Amino acid sequence: MAMEAARLSPSLAAAAFLARRPPRASPFFLRRRHPLLRLFASASDSSGDGRAVALSSAELRKRRGLSSSASAGDAASGGDEKLGSLRQLFSRPDIAIDAYIVPSQDAHQSEFVAECFLRRAYLTGFTGSAGTAVVTKDKAALWTDGRYFLQAEKELSREWTLMRSGNHGVPTTSEWLNEVLPSGGRVGIDPFLFSFDAAEELKDAISNKNHELVLIRSLNLIDEIWNDSRPKAPEKPIRVHGIKYAGIDVTSKLSFVRSQLSENGCDAVVISMLDEVAWLLNMRGSDVPHSPVFYSYLIVEISTATLFVDNNKLSEDVLEHLQNAGVKIKPYEGILSEVERLAEKGAKLWLDPSSVNAAIVNEFRLSCEKYMKKKGKAARKNGDKGESSDELRAKGTGSQSGELNVVYRVSPVTLAKAIKNEAEIEGMKNSHLRDAAALAEFWCWLENEVCKDVSLTEVQVAEKLLEFRQKQDGFLEPSFDTISGYGANGAIIHYNPSPENCSSIGSENLFLLDSGAQYIDGTTDITRTLHFGDPSARQKECFTRVLQGHIALDQAVFPERTPGFVLDVLARSSLWKIGLDYRHGTGHGVGAALNVHEGPQSISYRYGNLTALQKGMIVSNEPGYYEDNSFGIRIENLLLIKELNLANSFGGVSYLGFEKLTFVPIQRKLIDPSLLSSLEIDWVNDYHEEVWEKVSPLLTGNARDWLWENTRPLLYESP
Amino acid sequence: MAMEAARLSPSLAAAAFLARRPPRASPFFLRRRHPLLRLFASASDSSGDGRAVALSSAELRKRRGLSSSASAGDAASGGDEKLGSLRQLFSRPDIAIDAYIVPSQDAHQSEFVAECFLRRAYLTGFTGSAGTAVVTKDKAALWTDGRYFLQAEKELSREWTLMRSGNHGVPTTSEWLNEVLPSGGRVGIDPFLFSFDAAEELKDAISNKNHELVLIRSLNLIDEIWNDSRPKAPEKPIRVHGIKYAGIDVTSKLSFVRSQLSENGCDAVVISMLDEVAWLLNMRGSDVPHSPVFYSYLIVEISTATLFVDNNKLSEDVLEHLQNAGVKIKPYEGILSEVERLAEKGAKLWLDPSSVNAAIVNEFRLSCEKYMKKKGKAARKNGDKGESSDELRAKGTGSQSGELNVVYRVSPVTLAKAIKNEAEIEGMKNSHLRDAAALAEFWCWLENEVCKDVSLTEVQVAEKLLEFRQKQDGFLEPSFDTISGYGANGAIIHYNPSPENCSSIGSENLFLLDSGAQYIDGTTDITRTLHFGDPSARQKECFTRVLQGHIALDQAVFPERTPGFVLDVLARSSLWKIGLDYRHGTGHGVGAALNVHEGPQSISYRYGNLTALQKGMIVSNEPGYYEDNSFGIRIENLLLIKELNLANSFGGVSYLGFEKLTFVPIQRKLIDPSLLSSLEIDWVNDYHEEVWEKVSPLLTGNARDWLWENTRPLLYESP
Repeated sequence: MAMEAARLSPSLAAAAFLARRPPRASPFFLRRRHPLLRLFASASDSSGDGRAVALSSAELRKRRGLSSSASAGDAASGGDEKLGSLRQLFSRPDIAIDAYIVPSQDAHQSEFVAECFLRRAYLTGFTGSAGTAVVTKDKAALWTDGRYFLQAEKELSREWTLMRSGNHGVPTTSEWLNEVLPSGGRVGIDPFLFSFDAAEELKDAISNKNHELVLIRSLNLIDEIWNDSRPKAPEKPIRVHGIKYAGIDVTSKLSFVRSQLSENGCDAVVISMLDEVAWLLNMRGSDVPHSPVFYSYLIVEISTATLFVDNNKLSEDVLEHLQNAGVKIKPYEGILSEVERLAEKGAKLWLDPSSVNAAIVNEFRLSCEKYMKKKGKAARKNGDKGESSDELRAKGTGSQSGELNVVYRVSPVTLAKAIKNEAEIEGMKNSHLRDAAALAEFWCWLENEVCKDVSLTEVQVAEKLLEFRQKQDGFLEPSFDTISGYGANGAIIHYNPSPENCSSIGSENLFLLDSGAQYIDGTTDITRTLHFGDPSARQKECFTRVLQGHIALDQAVFPERTPGFVLDVLARSSLWKIGLDYRHGTGHGVGAALNVHEGPQSISYRYGNLTALQKGMIVSNEPGYYEDNSFGIRIENLLLIKELNLANSFGGVSYLGFEKLTFVPIQRKLIDPSLLSSLEIDWVNDYHEEVWEKVSPLLTGNARDWLWENTRPLLYESP
Repeated sequence: MAMEAARLSPSLAAAAFLARRPPRASPFFLRRRHPLLRLFASASDSSGDGRAVALSSAELRKRRGLSSSASAGDAASGGDEKLGSLRQLFSRPDIAIDAYIVPSQDAHQSEFVAECFLRRAYLTGFTGSAGTAVVTKDKAALWTDGRYFLQAEKELSREWTLMRSGNHGVPTTSEWLNEVLPSGGRVGIDPFLFSFDAAEELKDAISNKNHELVLIRSLNLIDEIWNDSRPKAPEKPIRVHGIKYAGIDVTSKLSFVRSQLSENGCDAVVISMLDEVAWLLNMRGSDVPHSPVFYSYLIVEISTATLFVDNNKLSEDVLEHLQNAGVKIKPYEGILSEVERLAEKGAKLWLDPSSVNAAIVNEFRLSCEKYMKKKGKAARKNGDKGESSDELRAKGTGSQSGELNVVYRVSPVTLAKAIKNEAEIEGMKNSHLRDAAALAEFWCWLENEVCKDVSLTEVQVAEKLLEFRQKQDGFLEPSFDTISGYGANGAIIHYNPSPENCSSIGSENLFLLDSGAQYIDGTTDITRTLHFGDPSARQKECFTRVLQGHIALDQAVFPERTPGFVLDVLARSSLWKIGLDYRHGTGHGVGAALNVHEGPQSISYRYGNLTALQKGMIVSNEPGYYEDNSFGIRIENLLLIKELNLANSFGGVSYLGFEKLTFVPIQRKLIDPSLLSSLEIDWVNDYHEEVWEKVSPLLTGNARDWLWENTRPLLYESP
């Protein structure tokens, strides 16, 4: 699955931070957060079925039924009411703001968010995954990108102005605020929903017009107006991710984090990314769609560790698992008081400013200040008894601003999680083979149906794929919303078909299918592009050049310490030769039975991410080509980075290369062999031979026959 | 000619500055400057032959005769004396310093420097091209890099400590100063010899130990002790670089600079890089070896332009040329008073801090301060009459520090000079053909001599090459010291053979020859590697992989706005596949009848240079492989960047590619065709066909036969 080029992932932002270069400005830089705190303290379920919600966006749209056709009408009245209620809150003396920003994210920078945190969607009626709403006393505007312009036009009421991000002359949220608010305005945000970096950037941007950023911590204004209709907080049980899959026990992982704390002179670290908590504690949940994570924070200190989580989700097994690792449990909403306690203890705290939210960081800074003042007073009272300010300072207890007691640094878990251990690699390999079997069955079925002229929509086809995957051992859920795009829809990079408005798969054009799954032992992400009729010469040329890029990256060998962006050109140069390109990165990191997008590595034409590709990391290899209003092509495998044993090792360094994890045929009819070198033809044939060897034992009947047919060598086909 | 990887070129430093990233630290960051000012005011010639000196380093070594064998002895006594005299100056009341830094450079960041400015060589006895000397009251240390360790060991007296830069644990000059000087020391430099950036960086680095950087502007301490033995300043005549070669007249170029001044709200710019002055004024000189430039500064204002140059060098022709373009002339040493005058006028000045020396920048800043104070006093005296401070400020006349009146920015000439016009391209193409004819004659001759078992040294061979080039029309001089390395010497990237200590060319090993020439119409730079006997399989494999990298870069197509470093991997990946690499960049910019190394573009594995490769730029393509103590391989052509007319232009952008300028055969016997794709074989054959077509008309006799033999296609050779 390709990551949207215009949006910085948190890990990229972290890398940019480490490299001391500002992340690229984007209205979507205001991203990802959310305060379960209040919710968990006062959740009430009136959503009808009473079950906790963790729905994919497709499912969500389905449950909302007619939302996309009826929403404009609904919103025309309902939107007004919501905006009215929200604006009433602006003038409450304890709030007193002139504008309020409502981003899409939760408190953990999650890519996928539980329904109860879809506040922007609730407020605006716009259900797309990316967008930021800004409401002033007399204006309401929503920013979203090109993927969602049409959908937003349909879903927004007339009260809302659609800001088409990326279009010429469209201001960012802060530029707009500087434009529409009289100087000296008060701009409110929920600090749980902004990373510290994002909040600081926003504060700077609006200070040009002397606007003040007001962090409203005690309540979220949308939650206030949402009331009873708000979906319940997710409360699905958490499970232990067995050592068989995790490979390293929690005690060892905590020891590693503690050694990092010591090395950096820190006493504690707040882990707030949900996949980092899940990885570190060898636990999995299902609070959000697509990622097996659970809402929580973790604080690791030198001798203790505390998990902040809703107690109801913990079974006996999990409690025992945590106890064995010496992890204490506190309520999710206890995070801020714990941070305050750390400040009072004079602890030096490690915070990742690109992922930890502004509420936590500011709580710590303010508590440090408060503590310093108190100590100062006490010292003055006691004369020379007790610790002097100087002594406190020498201990690093903090300057007036509390800065001295914070180390801003990318989380110690980020890189450790990215470098997979043997058990994780084993799980990824196994789950990829089962996934490949499901895909072979699926493609065999689809080809047959299309040949029989059965009309199947993009959505129906995606649902059938889900059925095939569900039959595989250890299947949990799709790892993202399936991108099922026929013809021109394939050219929309993050196309998400809706049942009421999608194409049928035919034999006239290309069909692009980008999908993935969460299994108990691994996470998959694969794209194939097929044609069930006669592809045009143009389509074959483009497909073959995309394939050449895919092969060039797959075959790359590179010295250790090479950042991913160095290799990006290998995947593009075959397209560049005829003046073509694609507007997304070539590879993203993938978690092991975790998030389908993870950092810190990437392979992209953007030069900001200097993280070296390292042995044990997993990346996607997904060049593409998209011809607007015509067709889309993408070929995606996941790759494991491994150390090579070459005849030479110039400079005494290791040389690295890739091992394929994905084993699904690449449609030969789309390949023009006359464009390929003999090495490239060998690559295709070797790959297909490996696909047959690895996947055929998992198949029977038609699917096995289909796999045989589709793994025959190029140039050796019978006439 | 490959640029040394460890040394930042001024243009790279400029690019790094623009990208707001600090250049990589290196003791050689202290680079390039020098004050002709005093010298030209008091030059006395006692060098014997009385002629102005602009000698290549080989020539220099030759003239010094036995220096490299006798210097240790000389230095043992002479070095002491020099150090003693220098240290006596430390305590003079008007100087009062604890240490003095003597870099290798002149006042213009020149790569090649006139002999009278080789102060570091004079002081230390060490004649290598790169090095920095630091002298304290009781210590003397010289920093140089791996190329020169052996030479420096020989040439330095026992008074000197050799600091082997790049070796583990070796401190930088500033680290060393922080180590050896008692806190609060005064470190003297000649501010003409440091760019403003370099001086600021040094100031910061030594401030950790409260050392003060003392800019001694009124005299250079080495010149003080050098006295009568100092070579005379160069005074070779300057010539007009005809419009036939320059393509654009001076008036148009000045108009362009003025439009840049207006766009940036500036009143004037100081141009201090010698090649920039030469390019802008369509003039050439021969004050330094290898580059056709002359010592000067140029100030361009909105309605005037002033050249600061030694009047003696200007013929009637040149005077008329300057007059026609409206360029006034002032003495070289008048630069500082002119800068002061600009400050007094309240002019806003454009300064490139990576190239303009600290003396000029600080003169302007101090003068602005002085002027502000005076104006302030006058305003107070006159009450409300005259301009108020506020009015002055509004006009941008400067803050207290004078900063408001400076725009720090890369010189407006840098990019304009890099993008060649039609006439420059024509001249480059023509001179490359003549150069190719000289090389064909040379290789034909050498092959013959080696076959006849004539013993020829690396130096003799380089001298013979010079003879062949001298016969070509418009030849001026070599564009750098020829790198002529047989066998193991070829593995030394910047090998510079000395007559008394060099190898003979044989038929047992590879011979690497990297050379270039200045012609009236263009500048060349070419490397070829040949074997006159039977190359080993290993040598053939390495050569073929270097060639594959060369071909991959040559054939690259890329969208506009692509920085050079993106393409670097194309030249390396064939070597990486077998665990090999090379420790230098792949391409540098080349001037048109100017410096053989120019910015701002480059093709390098370092990611600091974000300058886009642009149509009309010229770059070298020179991958290599060096096996220590065994052999070296490099294949270098110069390439012109051109716009391609492709079937597609995705994103509406231009796609760019390369056109070869260099036409000299690549030795086929070193190519293992079994490693090449058919496209790569076609490349070799097409190239050789083009070489024959373009160069054979310039040859007769044996050389023509040699060219015919050496341009026959691969795989089509008769048995």
